Amino acid sequence: MDTPNVLLTGFGNVGRAFVRLMHEKRELCRKTYDLDLRLRGVFKTNGGLFAGEDSDLFGIEELSSSDCLAHSAWKTGLRCKDLFSQLKPGVLVECTPTNIHTGEPGLSYIRKALEAGWHIAAASKGALVVDFKNLKEMAKKAGVCLKYSAATAAALPTLDVGLYSLAGTEILGIEGILTGTANYILSRMEHGISFQDALKEAQARGIAEPDPSLDIDGWDTASKILLISNSVAGTDFELKDIPCEGIRNLTPADILAAREEGKSLKLVGWVIREVGSMRAEVRVAAIDQAHPLGRLAGTQKGITFYTDTMGQVTVAGGKSDPRGTAATLLKDIINIFR
Amino acid sequence: MDTPNVLLTGFGNVGRAFVRLMHEKRELCRKTYDLDLRLRGVFKTNGGLFAGEDSDLFGIEELSSSDCLAHSAWKTGLRCKDLFSQLKPGVLVECTPTNIHTGEPGLSYIRKALEAGWHIAAASKGALVVDFKNLKEMAKKAGVCLKYSAATAAALPTLDVGLYSLAGTEILGIEGILTGTANYILSRMEHGISFQDALKEAQARGIAEPDPSLDIDGWDTASKILLISNSVAGTDFELKDIPCEGIRNLTPADILAAREEGKSLKLVGWVIREVGSMRAEVRVAAIDQAHPLGRLAGTQKGITFYTDTMGQVTVAGGKSDPRGTAATLLKDIINIFR
Repeated sequence: MDTPNVLLTGFGNVGRAFVRLMHEKRELCRKTYDLDLRLRGVFKTNGGLFAGEDSDLFGIEELSSSDCLAHSAWKTGLRCKDLFSQLKPGVLVECTPTNIHTGEPGLSYIRKALEAGWHIAAASKGALVVDFKNLKEMAKKAGVCLKYSAATAAALPTLDVGLYSLAGTEILGIEGILTGTANYILSRMEHGISFQDALKEAQARGIAEPDPSLDIDGWDTASKILLISNSVAGTDFELKDIPCEGIRNLTPADILAAREEGKSLKLVGWVIREVGSMRAEVRVAAIDQAHPLGRLAGTQKGITFYTDTMGQVTVAGGKSDPRGTAATLLKDIINIFR
Repeated sequence: MDTPNVLLTGFGNVGRAFVRLMHEKRELCRKTYDLDLRLRGVFKTNGGLFAGEDSDLFGIEELSSSDCLAHSAWKTGLRCKDLFSQLKPGVLVECTPTNIHTGEPGLSYIRKALEAGWHIAAASKGALVVDFKNLKEMAKKAGVCLKYSAATAAALPTLDVGLYSLAGTEILGIEGILTGTANYILSRMEHGISFQDALKEAQARGIAEPDPSLDIDGWDTASKILLISNSVAGTDFELKDIPCEGIRNLTPADILAAREEGKSLKLVGWVIREVGSMRAEVRVAAIDQAHPLGRLAGTQKGITFYTDTMGQVTVAGGKSDPRGTAATLLKDIINIFR
């Protein structure tokens, strides 16, 4: 039985959901995958919990943040980064908030972890978007897995399908509805609600962030399409290479005009093959309802890959919530140790 | 660079397409996957070609069956089964015609190959449907991979998604439109054409077999749902456990009645969780057009998995032709040696 050390960075909704899920799925992981994960530490920006190498934190999944800080294992001044070289290498579960400009704080955690030979399962996009090529090379050099399904539409399997199910094909194009929040707002606008009201509703329901700009200005989609394309289609995009349009200026009249032609406005990330190269962009497009992505409503996401030998393959669905993202992290970890 | 021996059994449309594709994708396999496949032999019911261990058959991809038999490497009386123990173990690509009652001739080939430590990539369903549990155990014991994506809806990634992308989830249910021929006939019947005429048209277009009974009586769907469920949901179904309805007795009036309610008649394979157990069945059902599988037209296929933690995940598409099936075999082989 594998008993890998797990360190978790970030203890927001996703980090907490992951700890709960590890607990809930412990028996399944042991029985089905011969895998017994040991949660050695949980770290937030302002401190953390370290259980030591001989015990684990399976008891803390229901504790609040303030409980954590009061926990007896708390060690003042202990920095998570120091632990990577002190513990037997396992897997870093990276759930800190996404910053697509600096990649921090995740970037420093991931670099330190890779240097010390740890596998990575990342839910936050920032570090990968900022430093994709370098992190991939570091992982290759260290002979470890760098997984980020949870950062690329989470429970919607985008990378698995592109890398595993379509292995040996040539990817001719990709189109994806990858931001649940934007799709939710557009779906509500189809019912005649204004952008502002739909956004407020999404925030009240916990679907949109207090600062929703990444989602509604298209950068969330752009980040995901960058990671997917660079992983699957061999491109080398940086965020600045991807022209990006958001949904902020759409009116219900725009939505209805599309509707009258039997189409729906969607925020789509595209990768398009052109002579000798690929280009990517994010923009609002009127999608026919007969298109496999045309009927995705609410927070639903989907992606279509166009290939040379297998035709067109579409995946849609996957729960858009912290538990779904946590399940995606667990999936990546299971596949790392399989 | 891995240089595994490949033996191919079955040289019909799929087998031929596979040999052509191996040739076409040779450079990609070398460059991207560090894999250089060596086709040592091609076998049909009435004979075959064996190149020896030091040369391969990459030149034969355009040869007709009669050319094969006249090939200088042809050895009278040489049986493919003898080769598994004579060659360094590689991968058997099994493309013989499907017989869901006896599993032969594929079953004997697969058993011999597993006994000699060969990996399997199977396109034919028969052997697996007849002897699933035993073949899985043989593969496990031999420490080799038994892959059959090409037998479970081919370019539509059913097993990959269930086993890999949904790892760690509990499968609560599966529904799939898995037989392209049946879906094609039902789609044509939506245009008012009778079952018999739609079937003739499908045969004329090479979509339906001369003997279409496996497809139109539901046994193709039942075989696929058996393999998918046993692989992904931990069931232990045999074909006799799966009540099976076909599309033979449907009339255009049945189709139109569903249409009037905004639904489409589809041939669906189901796996349903009930208290303490799972049950499977194949039947014609009226599917709402808003359902992710409701709009699949022509030979399109799709599958929806219902899970505890990731919600509902649907995959649709994937080319339904010999080239798509060949690409699926190649995908499985790449993933075996990755």
